[in-house]
Amino acid sequence: MSKISAKPLSGFQELSLKKQIIFDKIKRTIEKTFEEEGFFSIDTPAIERWEVLNGKGGEENQKLIYKIDKDTPQGLRFDLTVPFARYVANNLNDLPMPFPRYQIAKVYRGERAQVGRFREFYQCDIDIAAPIESLGALTSNSILSALAYTLDNILTDTSILKKTFNFKVLIGHRAILNQFFEENNLSDKTTKILAIIDDIKKIGEEKVSENLKALELSIDDVEKVINLINCSSTKELEELNWKEFDKVKPFIEELEFILSNNKENMKLDLSITRGLDYYTGVVFETFIEGELSKYGSMMSGGQYDGLIKAFLPNQNIGGIGGSIGLSRLFDILDKEDLFKEIHLYEIAILCDTSETFNNEIGSYNSRLKGKRIKREIGNIGKCLKRNKNVPIILILENNEIKVKNMLSNEQFNFDNKETAVNKIKSLLSEL
Amino acid sequence: MSKISAKPLSGFQELSLKKQIIFDKIKRTIEKTFEEEGFFSIDTPAIERWEVLNGKGGEENQKLIYKIDKDTPQGLRFDLTVPFARYVANNLNDLPMPFPRYQIAKVYRGERAQVGRFREFYQCDIDIAAPIESLGALTSNSILSALAYTLDNILTDTSILKKTFNFKVLIGHRAILNQFFEENNLSDKTTKILAIIDDIKKIGEEKVSENLKALELSIDDVEKVINLINCSSTKELEELNWKEFDKVKPFIEELEFILSNNKENMKLDLSITRGLDYYTGVVFETFIEGELSKYGSMMSGGQYDGLIKAFLPNQNIGGIGGSIGLSRLFDILDKEDLFKEIHLYEIAILCDTSETFNNEIGSYNSRLKGKRIKREIGNIGKCLKRNKNVPIILILENNEIKVKNMLSNEQFNFDNKETAVNKIKSLLSEL
Repeated sequence: MSKISAKPLSGFQELSLKKQIIFDKIKRTIEKTFEEEGFFSIDTPAIERWEVLNGKGGEENQKLIYKIDKDTPQGLRFDLTVPFARYVANNLNDLPMPFPRYQIAKVYRGERAQVGRFREFYQCDIDIAAPIESLGALTSNSILSALAYTLDNILTDTSILKKTFNFKVLIGHRAILNQFFEENNLSDKTTKILAIIDDIKKIGEEKVSENLKALELSIDDVEKVINLINCSSTKELEELNWKEFDKVKPFIEELEFILSNNKENMKLDLSITRGLDYYTGVVFETFIEGELSKYGSMMSGGQYDGLIKAFLPNQNIGGIGGSIGLSRLFDILDKEDLFKEIHLYEIAILCDTSETFNNEIGSYNSRLKGKRIKREIGNIGKCLKRNKNVPIILILENNEIKVKNMLSNEQFNFDNKETAVNKIKSLLSEL
Repeated sequence: MSKISAKPLSGFQELSLKKQIIFDKIKRTIEKTFEEEGFFSIDTPAIERWEVLNGKGGEENQKLIYKIDKDTPQGLRFDLTVPFARYVANNLNDLPMPFPRYQIAKVYRGERAQVGRFREFYQCDIDIAAPIESLGALTSNSILSALAYTLDNILTDTSILKKTFNFKVLIGHRAILNQFFEENNLSDKTTKILAIIDDIKKIGEEKVSENLKALELSIDDVEKVINLINCSSTKELEELNWKEFDKVKPFIEELEFILSNNKENMKLDLSITRGLDYYTGVVFETFIEGELSKYGSMMSGGQYDGLIKAFLPNQNIGGIGGSIGLSRLFDILDKEDLFKEIHLYEIAILCDTSETFNNEIGSYNSRLKGKRIKREIGNIGKCLKRNKNVPIILILENNEIKVKNMLSNEQFNFDNKETAVNKIKSLLSEL
């Protein structure tokens, strides 16, 4: 028989059993938090018609789409926002407004595989769709607070992490930038200026100035741009020389509302612009502090007024949302060796006879529900050898109940189930 | 702006919010049960190299594979068994043996869309990989019992279903059929005979006889085949005229072990052969009773000795497993209107001022965790109108606490949080 290679395609993540247990735990934390924060679950097909994928999202994304070889042009989704917009349009009559949704699913990008960049990866998205006039401070704040709360739940979970981490959400605003460009007759250069200022963390202020000059901005305009993106408070932002302050006022108030509600982990940063074409309001990216600060954004998103309208031109419905890059975050925590060591099986139950097994296993199973248990029947000595890597062993032999802590080599004898199970639970909690 | 169609591609399931809540509940029941039964979660890429998909699974499947347009030939998985076999080979050194795994994920088949047949659907699989010599009665029984227990959990869940259902798992055995074919010099016609007898439920015994005769089987052989597939107990099976009884004995004992352990919902049926090429031992399909008996199998699987060996020719590792067709099962329960009506929001909390909201919402949220809650600030009269479809409403107005049952129109006043929350919980439990 000729052998088929068992490696997954390059750029695809496939975890070991122990890593998968940790991954699933994080994924469930996210799911549970999103639900408790009031977001509804939706599930959309991984395959979308080409015109849906092609509709919005920028040229950058179109090149990355996995095309599928079928009569109807189609491909794999590259994010969960475009499918969400389609879902809203397709189900509008059944949806509450505002409509808060979450979706945790894989997306696909055919880019060159590199560290922390996968071709298939999980995104964990929350969004709120609502009439554009009712989007604003309250909605933005509920998205950002829920995301920050979720990320904090992950980064402070010492049941899986060796240490906890803080993070900062950097918040910009595309509508404020647009108003600025308009007031300074720079609107025709918007896309290029956004790309340049978005790079400031990588290339520094001096290089940004140079690049803006190369775009033929006057020295005065370059200075204004730099002053704008250097604003570190909404007060500074207010004090810029706005020609039509009324037009930016609601956006500055929106930022102020979000920042005052999330003082600990959010920060104004107008150089955050987000590459994708579809953002129109608040935009944000998130950086973890400490040894993880060298990695890029782990959670990002923003407001998009036009995306849903592409499917529903006669309705004035917009959206705001964000995404936790779960696969990437997991990969980085793993590469930096930040996960606690876990045991594949937590407990082994060894029985000397199948009679003992059949009589006893049910009641132990129900008392130890949710634990990872190996169950074996046979010669206890041999079973013990086979399971020497399992930390806690329950031995049912000659009608005796023994619990063995394999890490300390201690053994305990019991005359009833209940006390044995309590001992197992207390040993497990100390692992 | 030209409008993009918001419909998903045909053959793809997309649920309303209420249906998604029920779907997710069933999916979690399955996940939880698989975990409690001791199966480890694995996650494999949805895209596999072409040679992996093409390796096993029968010509029938190859035609259905979604091809992806990339330099390296690749496509979307059509089941979770072939990727499992690849995973075992790729991770062999890190796996416990026997290795019990579960996977709940979408698979893709480009077949013509028809009722209950989707192009993208969830399969919920459990499998055990182990050295072939250690597969057998115990392993088969643990797969079948765990699947039956899981399906029973779903079909008796009156929190989502209007009524409960029984089901029967019909169990055949490919190795017994193979030995029969060999003893009767029919081995060269195996594939064709399997296809014919697998059809008996659709076409009846007479037509099966005709089709077998058309295959140029002697009248005597046709009778033997019919007698074999008509066996309704392992005793009858034993009493057939086996030339080498020793060779079938362990397989009959395996069936007897499974059947005696699952008397209520399992039944011998050697006409069950399963289409896919890769099965070599026990095979099974499952039919729900009552008004759902007209639909096809909802849970099926079997033992496959060669699938993992295609990736690991030098190791003698086989597998046994089965799958619950979640999307199909859900679709049928939905079409037959068997789901209970649910409310999108269970509770609305209405506050007259944002001050009240900010002071009170946190403690109600934590007391009502896990409930689907709408939260609104504003004129209580208007809020009530907007939320008349929410069954339970909590009103926080003028420092008063009121709970309104919108179904009965009763209203209750409280002077503290605790009693109000208890009333809400008791009203919710009566919905």
